[in-house]
Amino acid sequence: MADGEAVSNKQVIFRDYVSGFPKESDMYVTTSTISLKVPEGSEAVLVKNLYLSCDPYMRSRMRNIQGSYVEPFKPGSPITGYGVAKVLDSRHPDFRTGDLVWGITGWEEYSLITTDERLFKIQHTDVPLSYYTGILGMAGMTAYSGFYEICSPKKGEYVFISAASGAVGQLVGQFAKLLGCYVVGSAGTKEKVDLLKNKFGFDEAFNYKEEQDLEACLKRYFPEGIDIYFENVGGKMLDAVLVNMRLHGRIAVCGMISQYNLEEPEGVRNLFTIVTKRIRMEGFLVFDYYHLYPKFLDLIMPYIREGKIVYVEDIAEGLESAPTALIGLYSGRNVGKQVVVVARE
Amino acid sequence: MADGEAVSNKQVIFRDYVSGFPKESDMYVTTSTISLKVPEGSEAVLVKNLYLSCDPYMRSRMRNIQGSYVEPFKPGSPITGYGVAKVLDSRHPDFRTGDLVWGITGWEEYSLITTDERLFKIQHTDVPLSYYTGILGMAGMTAYSGFYEICSPKKGEYVFISAASGAVGQLVGQFAKLLGCYVVGSAGTKEKVDLLKNKFGFDEAFNYKEEQDLEACLKRYFPEGIDIYFENVGGKMLDAVLVNMRLHGRIAVCGMISQYNLEEPEGVRNLFTIVTKRIRMEGFLVFDYYHLYPKFLDLIMPYIREGKIVYVEDIAEGLESAPTALIGLYSGRNVGKQVVVVARE
Repeated sequence: MADGEAVSNKQVIFRDYVSGFPKESDMYVTTSTISLKVPEGSEAVLVKNLYLSCDPYMRSRMRNIQGSYVEPFKPGSPITGYGVAKVLDSRHPDFRTGDLVWGITGWEEYSLITTDERLFKIQHTDVPLSYYTGILGMAGMTAYSGFYEICSPKKGEYVFISAASGAVGQLVGQFAKLLGCYVVGSAGTKEKVDLLKNKFGFDEAFNYKEEQDLEACLKRYFPEGIDIYFENVGGKMLDAVLVNMRLHGRIAVCGMISQYNLEEPEGVRNLFTIVTKRIRMEGFLVFDYYHLYPKFLDLIMPYIREGKIVYVEDIAEGLESAPTALIGLYSGRNVGKQVVVVARE
Repeated sequence: MADGEAVSNKQVIFRDYVSGFPKESDMYVTTSTISLKVPEGSEAVLVKNLYLSCDPYMRSRMRNIQGSYVEPFKPGSPITGYGVAKVLDSRHPDFRTGDLVWGITGWEEYSLITTDERLFKIQHTDVPLSYYTGILGMAGMTAYSGFYEICSPKKGEYVFISAASGAVGQLVGQFAKLLGCYVVGSAGTKEKVDLLKNKFGFDEAFNYKEEQDLEACLKRYFPEGIDIYFENVGGKMLDAVLVNMRLHGRIAVCGMISQYNLEEPEGVRNLFTIVTKRIRMEGFLVFDYYHLYPKFLDLIMPYIREGKIVYVEDIAEGLESAPTALIGLYSGRNVGKQVVVVARE
């Protein structure tokens, strides 16, 4: 490792554990240096980061809870998360210089990725590379596994999706429409509701912030009840959905973003309907389904190429914009999948 | 129908819909008359009631909620519920005079059962007839379908059962032990806890009323976590269980008796663990599984005859004792399955 190869490396550092609502000042941007060579004796990969993904689950990593499904961020170290990157140097047998990859990387210009992290080689480059932070990456696999593996969907069923314009929700809705379901989504702004109806082809959509009575609202959109609820928000919405479920309905629990910043989660009161309606409510994590990734690509690539599945991203430019972009997720400021561009190639 | 055949018929009448905790005075005992012949042109069955079943779900029928999974009781009419009876007259092709049956009947000495109600002919009479109000009837089928069809149990798994000394719980625990699971039950008195450990062969049992911190209590009994929770109570216990579940755990929701008499159900706060632990939580109703009844009998009859499955009943004598017996369920006064004897033959 020659000294001359060390370059400056801008980074987004996680300051310290957060309680309540996260703020931009819980992160800061700094510059360190990095060697662009993988150290001898390691099987690591050295990458240049191109696109970074802002995902709701990252809130969990801002808490100092050990033994959870994700490790906490390390105070004083860069944020880590899903991203798209280009391999500059590799001592890993599966990757070589010039490869494009997606997987867990750092919020910085260059990252040394150790081999125990999951990394996928990008095969199809006839779509925007940023798609691999979302529809062709973790969010896409989340939508795919949650909908097809957990929801047991059937043609003609009534499907409701909360946080429906997000990276996962927009795709679940389109999968459901392609299967012949009736699909309604909720979102938090008029712009997002318009997207759902006019861009993603949902049958109906509503702004949950404008509804005084979510239970009555869902009854309007689902006079026959809901067969499938793709749950992204939790809390009051879940309570309203429970009383509107049909017999033998299914609830795929993907996330509960409305609860992540509360000191104590809201209580859900209508759980007894799980018995009376014989509901199956099942949580899932995408990590358990990555073995299906090739099958997923076979399904979705033709749909994307033919324009039968569309995708909306909210692009923030530059590492400096990353803290604002991430925080914005929790107030629903982003429209579509929130991406941060570090570099375009 | 000759007038001379009309006999007096003692009945337990449902007075009116109930909010909050039901009281004995929500029912009253009266005497009317009944003809012991089935009217011509009907396919009904006329029975003499022998044993009546007191079941937690009956609380739901004291509310005036239409379109639920069970019909409300009719104010001014006898309570209806599961029972064992002897056929005195029949115009139904499947039943004849002298048959013993179990199914939905009235809380009275004699009932005219119309054919749209589910009625099973009793084949095995080498066990106490009262068993068909519980272990060989609805409660047995509830335990069987809930455990084998919903819990996906495997040998060696960690199983927790609440309200474990009740008609359903005691049987679920014994099924789990026979499969080679580690089984812990909760109940509300020392006597019930002793029963669980000494009579039903549970590995451990505890009195939930003596535990200040249910979450810590469950951690003591399940240092490795809970694979299967058979849910009978809801509320705080469910919250405590959720944080103690293992990865890919299953919660079979059979009932939530702690919630039935509340004006508003308690909120359950720890639902997000459904995601992090990938938990499947599924409600079920025995009505969906009665087609398995012959298979169930094939399994359980040998166990009962060989003493490998035991069963405890709490017998109340006479129709007059029925209101007290039913109300007692909701304060946990009964020890074992609550039965009311109307007549022994």
